[in-house]
Amino acid sequence: MSFIDGIFYLDLLGTLVFAITGLLAAVRKQLDLFGALVLATVTAVGGGTIRDLILDTPVFWTQQVIYLYVILFASVFTYIYIRFFTFPNKLLLWLDALGLAVFTVIGAQKALDFGLAVPVVVLMGVMTGVLGGIIRDVLAGEVPLIFRKEIYATASVLGAIVYVIALEWFAVMEWAAIVAIGLVFLLRVWAIHAKASLPTFGNPNQSGQ
Amino acid sequence: MSFIDGIFYLDLLGTLVFAITGLLAAVRKQLDLFGALVLATVTAVGGGTIRDLILDTPVFWTQQVIYLYVILFASVFTYIYIRFFTFPNKLLLWLDALGLAVFTVIGAQKALDFGLAVPVVVLMGVMTGVLGGIIRDVLAGEVPLIFRKEIYATASVLGAIVYVIALEWFAVMEWAAIVAIGLVFLLRVWAIHAKASLPTFGNPNQSGQ
Amino acid sequence: MSFIDGIFYLDLLGTLVFAITGLLAAVRKQLDLFGALVLATVTAVGGGTIRDLILDTPVFWTQQVIYLYVILFASVFTYIYIRFFTFPNKLLLWLDALGLAVFTVIGAQKALDFGLAVPVVVLMGVMTGVLGGIIRDVLAGEVPLIFRKEIYATASVLGAIVYVIALEWFAVMEWAAIVAIGLVFLLRVWAIHAKASLPTFGNPNQSGQ
Repeated sequence: MSFIDGIFYLDLLGTLVFAITGLLAAVRKQLDLFGALVLATVTAVGGGTIRDLILDTPVFWTQQVIYLYVILFASVFTYIYIRFFTFPNKLLLWLDALGLAVFTVIGAQKALDFGLAVPVVVLMGVMTGVLGGIIRDVLAGEVPLIFRKEIYATASVLGAIVYVIALEWFAVMEWAAIVAIGLVFLLRVWAIHAKASLPTFGNPNQSGQ
Repeated sequence: MSFIDGIFYLDLLGTLVFAITGLLAAVRKQLDLFGALVLATVTAVGGGTIRDLILDTPVFWTQQVIYLYVILFASVFTYIYIRFFTFPNKLLLWLDALGLAVFTVIGAQKALDFGLAVPVVVLMGVMTGVLGGIIRDVLAGEVPLIFRKEIYATASVLGAIVYVIALEWFAVMEWAAIVAIGLVFLLRVWAIHAKASLPTFGNPNQSGQ
Repeated sequence: MSFIDGIFYLDLLGTLVFAITGLLAAVRKQLDLFGALVLATVTAVGGGTIRDLILDTPVFWTQQVIYLYVILFASVFTYIYIRFFTFPNKLLLWLDALGLAVFTVIGAQKALDFGLAVPVVVLMGVMTGVLGGIIRDVLAGEVPLIFRKEIYATASVLGAIVYVIALEWFAVMEWAAIVAIGLVFLLRVWAIHAKASLPTFGNPNQSGQ
């Protein structure tokens, strides 16, 4: 299995996991089957879709239908599974951390392919990683979890920055990807276990605008 | 009147109806005139806009200004009308069902024009049909109605699938369109009258992610 | 300093101010640092991004990184500043009015560059001016302020219309821009001071759709 294949399978795994989180959000909101499918789909492909639109490149899932099949499979599987069993929350969070890590690096690399400047590359990586989850939470009528959760966007931002630096340093995409994916994953896993979070802003009574 | 003309006029009718539902949502939220115009516009063109962005084809209302005039007319008309009269809710729901049906088929056909795979075609049809209403509800600060409502996304999904199959079968666009539009419309009308709905997911206490 | 330079600096000022309003919304919601950065970024570039996607032209901040640096600077500055001081609300509202005015005219002019019809030009101007703030409010879990606030969308709509007319009249972009920016700015400042607002729709009990 080549490295590119490895990234591809990790990408599918990330898609699968994000689709499941979308479906579980739908469960909490008691949405019906197709509402849940919509939520699973936007969660899984939302970030990558906006990335591709901004890069003006064909949206990935219109070219590779397997992503939609993965979402359909994940949704139907989860739909049946949760009638009998409960997902181990910890496993889900770990897989979600892996998805966030992979999506961030894939997004950053795609922006690099277009020769964009470093701040744009970092933003593209972060957007690919987090926008799907933001859309999921907005559609489900909640303040996006990412805005509150321990070191989530932060892990993605640091991962994208480290990826760009490591790529400069090693000049080998494989190593840079492994370092960056590992960093995001470990940061998230550590944050989940330590319930670590960045301090929120002080002075919440400031009411500008 | 040719068939293509027929689809075009149905499309304008769908735009008109969706604009009215956006304006009425604005009424419920006591938005001012221009806030209401914004809501009417995104409801009417939101789905088609995202479809065209993903297909990387010129966004339809930038090329055919009549859509914007229809929205403006619908908004001003409704604005005046509701000061004196009340919309018959049933009529509105029937017209909305027709709009959903037409938008679904138009979205699916446009994706077929680009030679995309069947799952992508179905998703494009559904997105064209339902995204405008989702955006309307999110902007108005409500959990999108589609996620709760009897057989709404479901009708759109089935309509898009049936359109693709019927097109294969009949090899005549007109017939396929009539069958699919009829199916979505009748499903919705039946659902409205029977208050039918798909069962929601069980196990709402599952709290993954 | 040429006129084009002047517009460019006003655009950066608008970006700066909108980023600050996004960050202050994050403060009110007690978001963490990177959640706040996301909110500041979408507020500042959201409208222009959607405009560029619809026009199918490269998204401006992928080509000119300075916009992202301005947002980063504004966010970090505000983050530190509000720990010690309070923003004078009036100044913020005035600057926001200037940002709205500049963004509206820039959006309208960009649509004119693509030879689009007048209603499309007006809609593009308004979208550039107001969509960033709408996304900010939706992500922060609030009904968009624009939908309630005194003469906000209205000022943008009138500004875009006046810009198109003035351009026809004067045939000089500079004068048309000054007239339109001045109009939006003064309308907003007047509305802020007079707490003026358009009447909302009557008959809020109408519950169509």
